[in-house]
Amino acid sequence: MSLFRPNIDAMDAYKPGEQPPAGARVIKLNTNENPYPPSPKVAEAIEAELKAGAAPGERLRLYSDPMGTELRKAASEATGFPVEQILHGNGSDELLAMLLRAFVDPGEAVAYPYPTYVLYETLAHAQGAKIRTFDFPRDFALPEGLFGCGAKLVFVASPNSPSGTVYPAGQLAELADSLKRGILVVDEAYVEFADANALELARAKPNVVVTRTFSKSHSLAGMRLGLLYAPAPLVAGLVKVKDSYNLDRLSIVAGAAALRDPAWTKANVERVRATRARLARALADLGLEVLPSQSNFLFARLPGARAAERAAGAYRFLKEHGILIRYFPARLLDDGIRVSVGTEAEVDAFLERLKEYLARG
Amino acid sequence: MSLFRPNIDAMDAYKPGEQPPAGARVIKLNTNENPYPPSPKVAEAIEAELKAGAAPGERLRLYSDPMGTELRKAASEATGFPVEQILHGNGSDELLAMLLRAFVDPGEAVAYPYPTYVLYETLAHAQGAKIRTFDFPRDFALPEGLFGCGAKLVFVASPNSPSGTVYPAGQLAELADSLKRGILVVDEAYVEFADANALELARAKPNVVVTRTFSKSHSLAGMRLGLLYAPAPLVAGLVKVKDSYNLDRLSIVAGAAALRDPAWTKANVERVRATRARLARALADLGLEVLPSQSNFLFARLPGARAAERAAGAYRFLKEHGILIRYFPARLLDDGIRVSVGTEAEVDAFLERLKEYLARG
Repeated sequence: MSLFRPNIDAMDAYKPGEQPPAGARVIKLNTNENPYPPSPKVAEAIEAELKAGAAPGERLRLYSDPMGTELRKAASEATGFPVEQILHGNGSDELLAMLLRAFVDPGEAVAYPYPTYVLYETLAHAQGAKIRTFDFPRDFALPEGLFGCGAKLVFVASPNSPSGTVYPAGQLAELADSLKRGILVVDEAYVEFADANALELARAKPNVVVTRTFSKSHSLAGMRLGLLYAPAPLVAGLVKVKDSYNLDRLSIVAGAAALRDPAWTKANVERVRATRARLARALADLGLEVLPSQSNFLFARLPGARAAERAAGAYRFLKEHGILIRYFPARLLDDGIRVSVGTEAEVDAFLERLKEYLARG
Repeated sequence: MSLFRPNIDAMDAYKPGEQPPAGARVIKLNTNENPYPPSPKVAEAIEAELKAGAAPGERLRLYSDPMGTELRKAASEATGFPVEQILHGNGSDELLAMLLRAFVDPGEAVAYPYPTYVLYETLAHAQGAKIRTFDFPRDFALPEGLFGCGAKLVFVASPNSPSGTVYPAGQLAELADSLKRGILVVDEAYVEFADANALELARAKPNVVVTRTFSKSHSLAGMRLGLLYAPAPLVAGLVKVKDSYNLDRLSIVAGAAALRDPAWTKANVERVRATRARLARALADLGLEVLPSQSNFLFARLPGARAAERAAGAYRFLKEHGILIRYFPARLLDDGIRVSVGTEAEVDAFLERLKEYLARG
């Protein structure tokens, strides 16, 4: 006899990409981390917080700021959004979970395209929500069915994962308008690698929320930091479902320091974009069909009738040789591989092994 | 027209105790932080993680371990519990929230004594749960009504806040047995300051969960770290409602380092207990009725018919003089004040000002 809620018993846990143990000598191109280190200002800010008291780490005995004011101020300076329209999260994952809890009653509908970030499904199950998905066409254009779909919450990742495709603000605005009593969540985890973003919609529309993360462009996946931009009344309500002290002292100063060094972030983003272009060309030259990614990863379909078998084979072959990429054994995805854009050297190593695998036929 | 769920619209946000701005010269005896710094091993472990890569903070670009293995291993070594019976949280607050989400369907009942930690109410509202409370008697013995109350989840803080009173494991075992399809959550946030604990119940009973925090005895309120001990099947299910990467890299190493320096924690706990005894005697000498606290705070009732008015007055007078304590303008609590056990000097300053206030009559 289980003591859990039926929806919890029925669901699976979200499975994050493989995390090799510290010190393992692998090339990690599977969870879209940034290959370059964070701004040195981040470590400086953390060390300053550690040294601020009379004894090392003394300040850590005091609670952190529940409203993460220093971080939200830095985000306000960076974007021009007022602080009241910004909320801080323990990664954007926490913010996405809060959106479910605040807006979706059990039995109400959540909608999103398929395939996309798998966490939306996990969060919907955890909330006991009804799920409506709309298949992306082969080119990953936004599915027509989402418009006016009547769901309480609609998630669109832009750029989308694992496709890397981005959706213009105009189209997202139309989608938001079509939702009536629904909210559009634009998940911009990867947006700094794209040519455009939809942040202004969170100012222009009463029902648009934009989420961002420090895990990708800011090279801080290990610090768990996210931000949400939304109309002030939505932020005020979301605070009610937030853990009071959701960010620790070091995360708050780390995030603020990263935002205050935009030149560092921009330089790394430019390097990733340049490597992405080279990697896309190389994969196309190898005969793969590469989706036009505006993110820090590429999704590439293998050619031929045995595409699924060969994509899975490539994943395994690369793993045996110490290179982790992502293979999704799922509908609409099993004919391709997703590879994070690493350093030039990591990408070279990946391409060499992939060539070796493909040459086997 | 609100877009929020009705239960979210109807609820208030949890109000944490006042957090004065950094650098403010106040004596902070209002949120039960530890007056002594954390183990120096904590700052060392954080700095080692920052310096581990080729560039400062390089490791922070990689995701943290979703299962917080290093921290759970340290907890296992400290308690003898197998790792499978331990779960890590972003503060014990996150673990308490996860318990609601995993076990309580909207409309199902959550029960707890009153007065106790106010967060239980906030979390129940956020989940749309029905709330049943049972008044503590004046001596804060466990209310009879909790036994066999039929709630899905029963919270007992032991030591309880704001009373500081502790409940014997035998009595909690009886309560757990009486719940049939319900789970007993023993919130041991303050237990290291007590003479006994109920941790073994999480091993002996299929329906007992014990939560602990690093915010009090380990002096790490600012790092947001908590642990949950429970039967392995409960831990396995709770993982489904956990944010995948709920702890950042620095928190994980900080928590493990704190657990591996038990001598430091013990020494600070002993100092707090000694000061607590002195403070309790001094308050009694001033004519206050002091509840027998096994925690790092004391609840003391003011004497006489004007107790409520004078307790509120004491709070305000102390605040004007730069000393923050807690006053709860609520039923069964408004005749007293709660004061955290600070350093000897902080407690002296508090007592001096309180005497001054009481002398005014």
